[in-house]
Amino acid sequence: MKLNEILHITRKASKDLACVETEKINLVLLRLADLLEEKSSEVIEANSKDCARMDRNNPKYDRLLLSEERIKGIASDLRNVAQLPSPLGKVLQSTERPNGMRIDKVRVPFGVIGVIYEARPNVTIDVFSLCLKSGNCCILKGGSDAYHSNEYLVSLIHQSLEENQLNPRFVSLLSTDRKEVEELLHAVRYVDLIIPRGSQQLIQFVRQNATVPVIETGAGICHTYFDQYGDIEKGKDIITNAKTRRVSVCNALDCLLLHRERLSDLPTLTRELAKERVVIHADKASFEILKNHYPQDLLVEATEEDYGTEYLSLQMSIKTVDSLDQALDHIDQYSSRHSEAIVSENKEHCDIFCRKVDAAAVYENVSTAFTDGAQFGLGAEIGISTQKLHARGPMALEEITTYKWIVKGDGQIRPK
Amino acid sequence: MKLNEILHITRKASKDLACVETEKINLVLLRLADLLEEKSSEVIEANSKDCARMDRNNPKYDRLLLSEERIKGIASDLRNVAQLPSPLGKVLQSTERPNGMRIDKVRVPFGVIGVIYEARPNVTIDVFSLCLKSGNCCILKGGSDAYHSNEYLVSLIHQSLEENQLNPRFVSLLSTDRKEVEELLHAVRYVDLIIPRGSQQLIQFVRQNATVPVIETGAGICHTYFDQYGDIEKGKDIITNAKTRRVSVCNALDCLLLHRERLSDLPTLTRELAKERVVIHADKASFEILKNHYPQDLLVEATEEDYGTEYLSLQMSIKTVDSLDQALDHIDQYSSRHSEAIVSENKEHCDIFCRKVDAAAVYENVSTAFTDGAQFGLGAEIGISTQKLHARGPMALEEITTYKWIVKGDGQIRPK
Repeated sequence: MKLNEILHITRKASKDLACVETEKINLVLLRLADLLEEKSSEVIEANSKDCARMDRNNPKYDRLLLSEERIKGIASDLRNVAQLPSPLGKVLQSTERPNGMRIDKVRVPFGVIGVIYEARPNVTIDVFSLCLKSGNCCILKGGSDAYHSNEYLVSLIHQSLEENQLNPRFVSLLSTDRKEVEELLHAVRYVDLIIPRGSQQLIQFVRQNATVPVIETGAGICHTYFDQYGDIEKGKDIITNAKTRRVSVCNALDCLLLHRERLSDLPTLTRELAKERVVIHADKASFEILKNHYPQDLLVEATEEDYGTEYLSLQMSIKTVDSLDQALDHIDQYSSRHSEAIVSENKEHCDIFCRKVDAAAVYENVSTAFTDGAQFGLGAEIGISTQKLHARGPMALEEITTYKWIVKGDGQIRPK
Repeated sequence: MKLNEILHITRKASKDLACVETEKINLVLLRLADLLEEKSSEVIEANSKDCARMDRNNPKYDRLLLSEERIKGIASDLRNVAQLPSPLGKVLQSTERPNGMRIDKVRVPFGVIGVIYEARPNVTIDVFSLCLKSGNCCILKGGSDAYHSNEYLVSLIHQSLEENQLNPRFVSLLSTDRKEVEELLHAVRYVDLIIPRGSQQLIQFVRQNATVPVIETGAGICHTYFDQYGDIEKGKDIITNAKTRRVSVCNALDCLLLHRERLSDLPTLTRELAKERVVIHADKASFEILKNHYPQDLLVEATEEDYGTEYLSLQMSIKTVDSLDQALDHIDQYSSRHSEAIVSENKEHCDIFCRKVDAAAVYENVSTAFTDGAQFGLGAEIGISTQKLHARGPMALEEITTYKWIVKGDGQIRPK
């Protein structure tokens, strides 16, 4: 089907989806969970066609690969989403006006959401489940490396919709033709929201080209500032955890900002990092200290490009600052506004940091590793927004809804 | 000052504004209200330079013109905004996690908001007051026809900030150089939000060109559907009110959708419109009925372009439909998703209409003339959003804020 047709059909289908009961939606999610498990060998077969096309040493390979265990995980996530309360229909505000008319602000689906992502087939099911649960149709553009996997997964989605007498066109998977992406980004009136998930380049491309509203997700250039008044034990643990817990995630530490007066504590602060074999790109002052205390093969001098780099690997930079203000300026210049932390026992410094840092999540004496939908109690996650419009930080069901004002009366008119 | 410099300075100023107390903000607003009244003759003098450059027959002339009375109105609006509760600092959600860390979702300013508008000098004060009250710096690009007025008004704003020991760079007025607009639309990291206010062309231009997030406001192509089961008295009043109360506003009726079985009621439904001298662009079926009942000089045959036209004048179109579904399809195709109404005594039809119509405000037996911040109880209005991201319908103080997640603890790290 051509994109043009898909857009028309999906837009129309979104009106029907707006009238489907939550019970039915949950049945679809549960049926899909069962289907995935029943058909796991077929899923793996389709996936193996994709895997065969990719070099095993490619870091993307692991994200592409589906196994029995991963499929079980995906099915279990589906069952979780089925159990979450529906975000729809909630009256956010309600007023009865003196003239007798009632104004309700009611939570409703966006309508049609376009999601553009890379070669991670689990995202296909994830995105579908959160969109369906929130009453949204979705148009999926997955990475072409995962095309066979996605095609088969979407066929299971269609089957679970059809078995529940619902329109399979609630979900469409686009072809691997890149031109369709451009068209999608301009499908004003047909697509209500675009969410790009993946690399900074992908997100940048979408932001530069879309006329449909976008929510940016993902890229995390995260700092931890160890203040003049930082506690060394807390600092060591927080820095180690934020850097090494999982290196490929967006909330991982990229740059340690260190107050100059605490340079002598750097060997202690980085002790565990050495054990985890973290490569440190150190500025001059910190290099001078570390050169006698940190493994030589793991220590390099920082360049300007290191600041503002999202490493997604066992690497990080260190920048020495003279004051809280200087730390704030550095963060403002280089942060992607995802997650930023201060380690300090000085209450005033902590308050200023929390107030002035412009990021989705700001941490006081806590590791940035917590920026995550489940950790924040949202029950699910479709991405982490790094913009300020609409949703910020972890996004789940409520964040992919909007609202409308419904005004009911019996003939009210407005005086001149 | 070059835009580049303005962007840097404003971004920096926004950090300071985030720390200014509400009491101080209110003092600035009240001082500005006084200043406007004290200096009203100077305001009028500056304004008269702008007015002298414009043809008095230009429909924009009235919007450009400032009088003693209008200045009093603007000052009174400022005093109202000073009295509204601050939207800032509100904890929207708060959780204490089992590990002892506390997660607060707190309402905060966007930071820097760019507002692009046409030759209405009152908007300069309006936008400033709502931005300041919500803790946002603003960069204003007013229509060049109003440049002298705006320049003088912004000098009064600066004076009221300075007299309160605040940074005058919380607000900047751009020059009349159109290149600056393009730069502003791409000032990612410096400008957090762009709000265009004005004609559909302006909004379209911003949407097409901005990489900074945008909230579309304004354009209203509004329908009223008179159902098979519509009450004729309510219908007549609602149609008349929605069309004629004020014709230059975005919530005014542009197209009446009429169920075919109610064609014979059209002369009654349009009776008051004739008195108000509304020009009707009628489709074939309605034309046939009206030609013997509506003033000949006010009746023309509708063309395809009439549907989807925002008249902003004493004109409207009529389209006959065979069913509720057909009405819904027409609305979906031509509406700007602002305000849409149904007139019907059939509960089921009303419910389907409210559920399926995709618009900021959906009305059941009420005139669309109510779509307005004050009418919806928001206390103020910076514009009416016709998009679904972030804010929908009337936007006031809360709608120009965002939130951040503040996580406080004493050394918590996340287990692997």
